[in-house]
Amino acid sequence: MKERVFSGMRPTGKLHLGHLIGALNNWVALQDAYECFYGIVDWHALTTEYAEVSQLRENVVEITLDWLAAGLDPGKSTLLIQSRVPNHAELHVLLSMITPIPWLERVPSYKEQQVQLSNKDLSTYGFLGYPLLQAADILVYRAKTVPVGEDQVAHVELTREVARRFNHLYGETFPEPRALLTPTPRLLGLDGRKMSKSYNNCIYLSDSPEEIRGKTRMMITDPARTHRSIPGNPDVCNVYDYHKVFTPAEKAREIDEGCRTAALGCVDCKGILAGNLIQLTQPIYEKRLTWEARRNEVMDILESGTSHAREVTEGVMRDVRHAMNVRYDD
Amino acid sequence: MKERVFSGMRPTGKLHLGHLIGALNNWVALQDAYECFYGIVDWHALTTEYAEVSQLRENVVEITLDWLAAGLDPGKSTLLIQSRVPNHAELHVLLSMITPIPWLERVPSYKEQQVQLSNKDLSTYGFLGYPLLQAADILVYRAKTVPVGEDQVAHVELTREVARRFNHLYGETFPEPRALLTPTPRLLGLDGRKMSKSYNNCIYLSDSPEEIRGKTRMMITDPARTHRSIPGNPDVCNVYDYHKVFTPAEKAREIDEGCRTAALGCVDCKGILAGNLIQLTQPIYEKRLTWEARRNEVMDILESGTSHAREVTEGVMRDVRHAMNVRYDD
Repeated sequence: MKERVFSGMRPTGKLHLGHLIGALNNWVALQDAYECFYGIVDWHALTTEYAEVSQLRENVVEITLDWLAAGLDPGKSTLLIQSRVPNHAELHVLLSMITPIPWLERVPSYKEQQVQLSNKDLSTYGFLGYPLLQAADILVYRAKTVPVGEDQVAHVELTREVARRFNHLYGETFPEPRALLTPTPRLLGLDGRKMSKSYNNCIYLSDSPEEIRGKTRMMITDPARTHRSIPGNPDVCNVYDYHKVFTPAEKAREIDEGCRTAALGCVDCKGILAGNLIQLTQPIYEKRLTWEARRNEVMDILESGTSHAREVTEGVMRDVRHAMNVRYDD
Repeated sequence: MKERVFSGMRPTGKLHLGHLIGALNNWVALQDAYECFYGIVDWHALTTEYAEVSQLRENVVEITLDWLAAGLDPGKSTLLIQSRVPNHAELHVLLSMITPIPWLERVPSYKEQQVQLSNKDLSTYGFLGYPLLQAADILVYRAKTVPVGEDQVAHVELTREVARRFNHLYGETFPEPRALLTPTPRLLGLDGRKMSKSYNNCIYLSDSPEEIRGKTRMMITDPARTHRSIPGNPDVCNVYDYHKVFTPAEKAREIDEGCRTAALGCVDCKGILAGNLIQLTQPIYEKRLTWEARRNEVMDILESGTSHAREVTEGVMRDVRHAMNVRYDD
């Protein structure tokens, strides 16, 4: 039997290149060797976005389109909406009873995000419980493998601790999941800041080839290279960082040399990058268009994935209720 | 249409006289004028009892027997098991997103209980969230009236604050429930300490007349009255505190005088009390015996009440999901 995988994404908007190379490509690659559950974790979106929910419903559809376009295959993987699988909430409540608050307070992202998102009031009970809700998301499937980026490794570690404590108190019930670290190459936004919707500096999976060409042209390069004839320094050039990710190594080395010798100008350099980006994203872009035209089918995919998730988690929850003696009729 | 009531009790063991006069009698009295939902809040039992769950399942049955024996009528009121109505957990997660931690930290019972139950590790996330889970219990029924004792008034106040905040953020969704204060006469345990299962100083609704007579005999009286001929002081006598609750006022005055003049001895005084207690509890005791013999019927009552609760709360949750935009197929 295949080992089970769970991972999730928050529906906070269209996905960009960072999501593709930092998570989605890896998720797609796991589909054959693992039994994968991929969740649109909309309750998690509320932890930071509770004050602005007008786009939430639409974002769920958008992210599903991106997933399908990027190659998640509902014939292989289960795509589900967290909020439609109440067992996530039930396990969260049960785990909350045995989870010391200091375990949550010391998760690095807790303080970090409060600083980074200081414009939002994140002193809520739900925000503190975010990593515990993640633990429930994982354990309610008895997933053994959790593909995550570096920033989420501490959450998987918390999940392991909670699973251990549960097993200790109520008997062996959960496997301790392991993080499958997805290498996340450094990829900043078009302007050299963190790639983020709110900075308006992203290349989206849903961008057309023309949009990608236009956005690439606007990228900031080595600021010292003020003229075509002046040699540039790829080490401080955001465009070159993109080449390191999206351009074959040999070609990238050529570009490095061309830049340092002024043999290659920024316009041409960006043209090469745009070509490579388009080569990568055009199939996604086109596949997305075909899914956009079949919205009902997309909703059906979510409905049937979510329904499967309810069944699978109900089996796990029966064991959990039994272990905790929270049960009456079985 | 009748106004809706919600109240709950934690299934931590058989109910005693304090539960009867502090809550149950009042719950019974509300059944005709209100649409009552009474919940066995087993998740709440876990907030403090998570380490010892072996009796939890049986305690749910015990409390139901006590309820039915005391006069809760499944033909009038809905008796439900919290853990079998997942909407309680879903609303709890959603409310957690908008509830500031300081609101929970300042609930008086939070610090108090941590001190009182210092032998237990109550630094858990679930223990901090206890009053928020109560808020969800109430709001998920849109209950307007919550019969509670003095110690729970702060929890209803928190519920009102959370409802206001929700309505402010997402539009009018919940009524602000009001506490219906149940007068709770001072009633200590047989030994003069707080009446509590763990002190083994309770008179239970399930005690037989013989047990009640025996327990009453063991009660501690005015310690200065070391002999029958010495006058006593009812002001410092725990037995007299019971008379104040369970003996008609005129008779109680007689007893007061008889004690102070040594006309009445402790043995006779306790005999009068035992008679009054038995008069009160014998019908409950006998009704309980008949319910004990019909366990399957008791389980059916819980099953059908819980099923009704699922339906009612699903209607409320549809509105909640709509208000927060956490919805997809409607």
